[in-house]
Amino acid sequence: MGKLLIVGTIAIDEIETPFGKTGKILGGAATFIGLAASQFDVETAIVSIVGDDLPESYLEILRGKDIDLTGTEIVKGGKTFYWKGKYHNDLNSRDTLITDLNTLADFDPKVPDHFKDADVVMLGNLHPSIQLSVINQMEVRPKLIVLDTMNFWMDNTLDELKEVIKHIDVITINDEEARQLTEEYSLVKAAAAIQEMGPKYVVIKKGEHGALLFHDEKVFFAPALPLEEVFDPTGAGDTFAGGFSGYLAATDNMSFKNLKNAVIHGSNLASFCVERFGTERMKTLKREEVNKRLFEFKALTQFDIELR
Amino acid sequence: MGKLLIVGTIAIDEIETPFGKTGKILGGAATFIGLAASQFDVETAIVSIVGDDLPESYLEILRGKDIDLTGTEIVKGGKTFYWKGKYHNDLNSRDTLITDLNTLADFDPKVPDHFKDADVVMLGNLHPSIQLSVINQMEVRPKLIVLDTMNFWMDNTLDELKEVIKHIDVITINDEEARQLTEEYSLVKAAAAIQEMGPKYVVIKKGEHGALLFHDEKVFFAPALPLEEVFDPTGAGDTFAGGFSGYLAATDNMSFKNLKNAVIHGSNLASFCVERFGTERMKTLKREEVNKRLFEFKALTQFDIELR
Repeated sequence: MGKLLIVGTIAIDEIETPFGKTGKILGGAATFIGLAASQFDVETAIVSIVGDDLPESYLEILRGKDIDLTGTEIVKGGKTFYWKGKYHNDLNSRDTLITDLNTLADFDPKVPDHFKDADVVMLGNLHPSIQLSVINQMEVRPKLIVLDTMNFWMDNTLDELKEVIKHIDVITINDEEARQLTEEYSLVKAAAAIQEMGPKYVVIKKGEHGALLFHDEKVFFAPALPLEEVFDPTGAGDTFAGGFSGYLAATDNMSFKNLKNAVIHGSNLASFCVERFGTERMKTLKREEVNKRLFEFKALTQFDIELR
Repeated sequence: MGKLLIVGTIAIDEIETPFGKTGKILGGAATFIGLAASQFDVETAIVSIVGDDLPESYLEILRGKDIDLTGTEIVKGGKTFYWKGKYHNDLNSRDTLITDLNTLADFDPKVPDHFKDADVVMLGNLHPSIQLSVINQMEVRPKLIVLDTMNFWMDNTLDELKEVIKHIDVITINDEEARQLTEEYSLVKAAAAIQEMGPKYVVIKKGEHGALLFHDEKVFFAPALPLEEVFDPTGAGDTFAGGFSGYLAATDNMSFKNLKNAVIHGSNLASFCVERFGTERMKTLKREEVNKRLFEFKALTQFDIELR
């Protein structure tokens, strides 16, 4: 059983979609990553920070999935990172209504000693200096370091982002962010430019249009499963990252061939995440359901080529 | 060898992209469909109309691919359908600068007697009444009738469009058009609604994001090959349709399994079309190049699922 170290936010979210509104619910990148990774046989820990306003029951959801929270600091009298957002009718775009960093503003991650030898490190979307600090705390170079980021850090902390990118193996990024980071419109050219910056593997997420995995001259494409209805896209990208990194930690095989499987597993889990608000679907997701849908993924793209 | 009947425009195009401008060049839906279909062992005819201003050398390009033009009327003193368009920087959207219907305004298609038993009929994007007239001229019900259309006909001739849709087997349509036709945002729901209207198969084209094939509860996805550069998207959708229908006519197998292969062949040929202006790439495309890229398509999506 491999070890997976996750660094990212545990948050309180409030979400509005065309289908309804939530009250305050459990959210955050590390939460979705951890829940997805828990589908695999892997020892998982989350390094994060929350306030003591976070309901104990939320932490119990994560502990119930055997996720180690010894590296998650609970600040007495502090408030948990809070995000409120509203999705537009097409669910492809959203407005952030409120972002309160709260305790996250002072996040100084501490990797627990017993995870300083993790096989895979999954750096959720955070300030690049925090991501770099985690890498520097590792005692053994992890077999794979995966980094997620977003346009906010390109706009505000580009130098720090480029520094941490030098030290990672896989970056996950969406198509517009890949273009922004490289000033290349073609995703093929953008992925090549990002590989020049450090990561051997580039995953470009295209939401409902699937994800591309680039490595050297090779490219692999995983579609998103066409769904009758997307209910709430919150956490889909993090769920993808959690499935991707969790599968790789569990299988302990960092070959391109296995990274392709990891992309499929990540896409598969993300297709569940969007079916309910927040973490609802992921909390109770069964392995049988996951395996059944994997076969749908296979049927979706597999064909017998016939040359003429 | 199967017989393929194509109905559609043969046009004079002028195109401007960020990479340059063409003068007047050969274009039109039937042209691109025919050139793509000529990659397969199939007897092909085009029913169309042009003016005698169309350079004889343009018709020779089609005849040189063994395409029967006896059903293409050349109007003495008439002018050929003319389209001028300019693509935006991202090449995903374009402005039509000029559309002169010319002889197309009076197009009354006449299917040649020796193609009234065609195995596959490919109805290019035209007024739905013209498309219906072609179906009505067939002496034997074709094994497969494929129809391409666009939002213009939904805006202006919706009743006629719905009538012809009742009589076809496959519709090819883009994602926005599928949504417009059905008032369903989810493509899964839209495809189901279109199947209720008549066609057993629905192909939803998503441009650079690939194409989906729906049939009953089944769905198949073909990605677009990630390209370093898209040079000119003109004709890509028609090339897809030509590859799709040409492959099916040549293989004489209208099963869902073979339609999946046809979608891959169509996507493969479209990936060449966009590499040069107009028909330039398709005119000289060699079977070896086509087969080589088919293997790239296979590598792009094939994986070995591993259940846990």
